[in-house]
Amino acid sequence: MLSKNQKKLIAAMAQKKQRDSQLLFLAEGPKTVTDLLEAGLQPTLIAHTENWSLPSSWSSKSLERIPVTQKELDSASHLKTPQQVLALFKQPQYSFNNNAIYNELTLVLDGIQDPGNMGTIIRLADWFGISHMVCSMDTVDVYNPKVVQATMGAIARIQVHYTQLPAFFRQYREKCDNPIYGTYLEGENIYENSLKSPSLIVMGNEGNGIRAENAPFITHKITIPTFPAGTPTSESLNVGVAAAIVCAEFRRSENYSR
Amino acid sequence: MLSKNQKKLIAAMAQKKQRDSQLLFLAEGPKTVTDLLEAGLQPTLIAHTENWSLPSSWSSKSLERIPVTQKELDSASHLKTPQQVLALFKQPQYSFNNNAIYNELTLVLDGIQDPGNMGTIIRLADWFGISHMVCSMDTVDVYNPKVVQATMGAIARIQVHYTQLPAFFRQYREKCDNPIYGTYLEGENIYENSLKSPSLIVMGNEGNGIRAENAPFITHKITIPTFPAGTPTSESLNVGVAAAIVCAEFRRSENYSR
Repeated sequence: MLSKNQKKLIAAMAQKKQRDSQLLFLAEGPKTVTDLLEAGLQPTLIAHTENWSLPSSWSSKSLERIPVTQKELDSASHLKTPQQVLALFKQPQYSFNNNAIYNELTLVLDGIQDPGNMGTIIRLADWFGISHMVCSMDTVDVYNPKVVQATMGAIARIQVHYTQLPAFFRQYREKCDNPIYGTYLEGENIYENSLKSPSLIVMGNEGNGIRAENAPFITHKITIPTFPAGTPTSESLNVGVAAAIVCAEFRRSENYSR
Repeated sequence: MLSKNQKKLIAAMAQKKQRDSQLLFLAEGPKTVTDLLEAGLQPTLIAHTENWSLPSSWSSKSLERIPVTQKELDSASHLKTPQQVLALFKQPQYSFNNNAIYNELTLVLDGIQDPGNMGTIIRLADWFGISHMVCSMDTVDVYNPKVVQATMGAIARIQVHYTQLPAFFRQYREKCDNPIYGTYLEGENIYENSLKSPSLIVMGNEGNGIRAENAPFITHKITIPTFPAGTPTSESLNVGVAAAIVCAEFRRSENYSR
């Protein structure tokens, strides 16, 4: 059974201020909780119904688990359809590994607001072997429970950093000659460019794109072409979809072009 | 001012049964409403605040518009942050154009459930010049207000059909020799295959993929490879993201491969 204080703490995870002061975040469902445990993240509380069991790699470790009824889980959960388990984890403290960022393909997010989009982007970064993401300070918090949920466990494998982007770009330009690609509605066709990594791919805010203060650092403006060219179509693609197509094209052109 | 009956009708648009019996659907916000008007769809009611005005192409036509206050709009809207205008449109009645489907690249959805995913897929179909989608009967309704919203106006340009997929596939195989591509977690690498259109691209349900009853019709199982191959990664991509990468790759390989 969950204590009153534990319930309070779980409810508090909806607020960034509370997550930051406790240095905790909430994960729900067997897939996400298991992925985080297997990635070695440290849980401070695991509440689960009797259908859930600890992944075998953890069975020997002494983890405090709290058995709950479905009703208790329903009342503590932030989800519409709670499943089997929820857990609080310590927020991993990543140091900003500049060398890794200079030597890899890295995603930069300039003001992404929607938790679903953020989760989708983390999930596809994981798919495409992108291990770091650098975000503007106003990008949605990676530990927002809706983001955690939408990553489907990928949050366990991706390091997400928040920083002042102009300063980050300035340092990046000083330290290395890698391209900085920015996705625009009017840029060069990604299929008529040679996309090179290590580099940065900058994705802008859902409504406003890449901010004016960051635009001067972009060395290559790129665009996903519509088909057929010149017909009336949607004004833009969803930012998660655009990130997916661009990341896929980087990996394809590096690995499969003949 | 909206009448009581008009408010009731707008509220009823949350339910498929009501949409189907009235043959209406709800669209909200200047972007979506304007796109639908410009695509020639027939509104039966337009309620708007004083900041909204009819697109110029419509100014001469006699459309009944109902001025509302922001408060009235807030109370009638299905959105968290209602914007300027909402409208009821007649559901366009498309006849199933087999010839178009045999001669184009067409998306087939087998049980997509999430309205956001459905909207994203319609939006990217529009981007990539796919004008028809064929859906299993249990795929989320295209006129669900959340789907309409997520299409960002693309719903005005895409014809979405609902049908029994096995019968549709059977007829397709009889009438033409086009490939039927299905996306699987274990299929052939999309970058090592030659993707050809006209053809069908089948996307499966978020959790369960392509149904067993439809699998026998798939002529090519395809997969988006992870990078680098063989490292631990997300189990899957979001279905909207996967559809985007596959559609982009079809258009790229047809138009830009050297």
